[in-house]
Amino acid sequence: MNIDMIEAAAARAQGHVRRTPLLHSPLLDDVAGRRVLVKAECLQHTGSFKFRGAWAALSAMSKGRGVIAFSSGNHAQGVALAARMHGVPSVIVMPSNAPAMKIANTRAYGAEVVLYDRNSESREEIGDRLASERGLTMIRPYDEPQVIAGQGTCGLEIAEQAAELGVMEADVIACCGGGGLTSGIALALEGSKLRVRPAEPQGFDDMARSLVAGERLGNAPAQSICDAIVTPKPGELTFPILQRLAGPGLVVSDDEALQAMALAFRHLKIVIEPGGAVALAAGLFRQIDSDTVIVTASGGNVDADMFTRALAAH
Amino acid sequence: MNIDMIEAAAARAQGHVRRTPLLHSPLLDDVAGRRVLVKAECLQHTGSFKFRGAWAALSAMSKGRGVIAFSSGNHAQGVALAARMHGVPSVIVMPSNAPAMKIANTRAYGAEVVLYDRNSESREEIGDRLASERGLTMIRPYDEPQVIAGQGTCGLEIAEQAAELGVMEADVIACCGGGGLTSGIALALEGSKLRVRPAEPQGFDDMARSLVAGERLGNAPAQSICDAIVTPKPGELTFPILQRLAGPGLVVSDDEALQAMALAFRHLKIVIEPGGAVALAAGLFRQIDSDTVIVTASGGNVDADMFTRALAAH
Repeated sequence: MNIDMIEAAAARAQGHVRRTPLLHSPLLDDVAGRRVLVKAECLQHTGSFKFRGAWAALSAMSKGRGVIAFSSGNHAQGVALAARMHGVPSVIVMPSNAPAMKIANTRAYGAEVVLYDRNSESREEIGDRLASERGLTMIRPYDEPQVIAGQGTCGLEIAEQAAELGVMEADVIACCGGGGLTSGIALALEGSKLRVRPAEPQGFDDMARSLVAGERLGNAPAQSICDAIVTPKPGELTFPILQRLAGPGLVVSDDEALQAMALAFRHLKIVIEPGGAVALAAGLFRQIDSDTVIVTASGGNVDADMFTRALAAH
Repeated sequence: MNIDMIEAAAARAQGHVRRTPLLHSPLLDDVAGRRVLVKAECLQHTGSFKFRGAWAALSAMSKGRGVIAFSSGNHAQGVALAARMHGVPSVIVMPSNAPAMKIANTRAYGAEVVLYDRNSESREEIGDRLASERGLTMIRPYDEPQVIAGQGTCGLEIAEQAAELGVMEADVIACCGGGGLTSGIALALEGSKLRVRPAEPQGFDDMARSLVAGERLGNAPAQSICDAIVTPKPGELTFPILQRLAGPGLVVSDDEALQAMALAFRHLKIVIEPGGAVALAAGLFRQIDSDTVIVTASGGNVDADMFTRALAAH
């Protein structure tokens, strides 16, 4: 994995993947006590950065009998739309308790959705079985070089957009599940003074602890509203990249994620989901030795009930 | 008024006014039964297109003892921030029943806010008196050439962004109060096959009726949640421009505006206010002889209660 793969992914993405804006507001800066630049990936096609990785994978592979993916909903939508745009059928394995909007949108983009029980079934097993039965190509959500390269295109844009604002040095905080986005951005920014740091929800801070321990650690059983990034442990491919390039991880509570959602509503006029708000929450509420932080607003696929909850609480 | 003034305003805006994205979603297109491109001016600084006109006016005028404006809230915030960025004090005359967020943000941007009673007092009188007492320069919300030129920069971007998508012919629907944005866009698009049409809320369709009548008509007493665009009648400067260049007006109900807000939440991940949603509502729900429509999502300064109402209803 290196920057050449990311630049190749960016070239294939031209005209298909949206260059999302880097937003900021003086009123949001007042809340944070520092300058906060927000990479609005919720405005990406399908409402999250996952479309980048899905497009990179689909555009790099030989088109076979179709693709398959497992996902709680954002990778699902990204793969579903990218497959449709490539004229290839897709099957997506999703937990039955995923947000209703994510399941509905994945179907609306044309995918066949197979639901499973998160507590009693293994999505990897179901995915592998369907893949071999039907001759489908698996697109893994983060442990897949082309997916990491695709997510890295977000990092290339961050570097360009920060430079346009005269920002050459900053912490870049990314919402982190398995680490695909975080490691892609890390590779894209390697050699610059923009340093990547993962942000995670309480109870699912496996990446932060793994970086400290120097080995991949899992999470104890826990619950979080940040459904997009409640992964069991760091990826095999993503962890070594972050071990080499990332700063210390940051951890926020579910309530801080809700507060970040409400502040993004008020000051940036964007919709972000809990798992897409943890980087903003970290940039707003954690002690950081950096006058400027850049945060990813990674996704905006949130049901109305949860969004209303954020607005009512803050 | 002509395109040269708009291009000069665009040159002065460079690096200060945001080039907002032109968003779209296949799922939103499915709702409309046509292609809908959304110019997301809610992502402009201060959360509405009004910052464009305020910047154009402030950057063109000689800086005196300060500026004054009257506004229900979006022009207020635009002038307040543009004045602060120019190092000039601002006084804003606002109705006491304006949305709380608009009043709070206008103050937070550094303006002195003077409240008045919409039913018993005239904002023009209060504004004129304060202007002469304190030696302040009035920046009118739409009947001011530099303001129209500033709003027109939105039209220049629409033309560029539509061309990037291969769209050379379409109806361009703009949320219309006094007509500053609509006439600015009309001038920017003059000579192209992109035709401007104003969209208004029921009860405040003075522009649509005036275009039919060939003279400036007012509205009968009415109520609407679209606070940003409940102006009494078309502007003196804006109406002749629209008479010459605009297509027929479109009118939507408050409930259709709320529905458009909910669909923008779900499919575009942007926050728009009722008055900023009427163009999208018209593009989604009215009969239009155009395969592609471009609509302005003019502003996103909406209180949490009203936004929650939109999500709960739709």
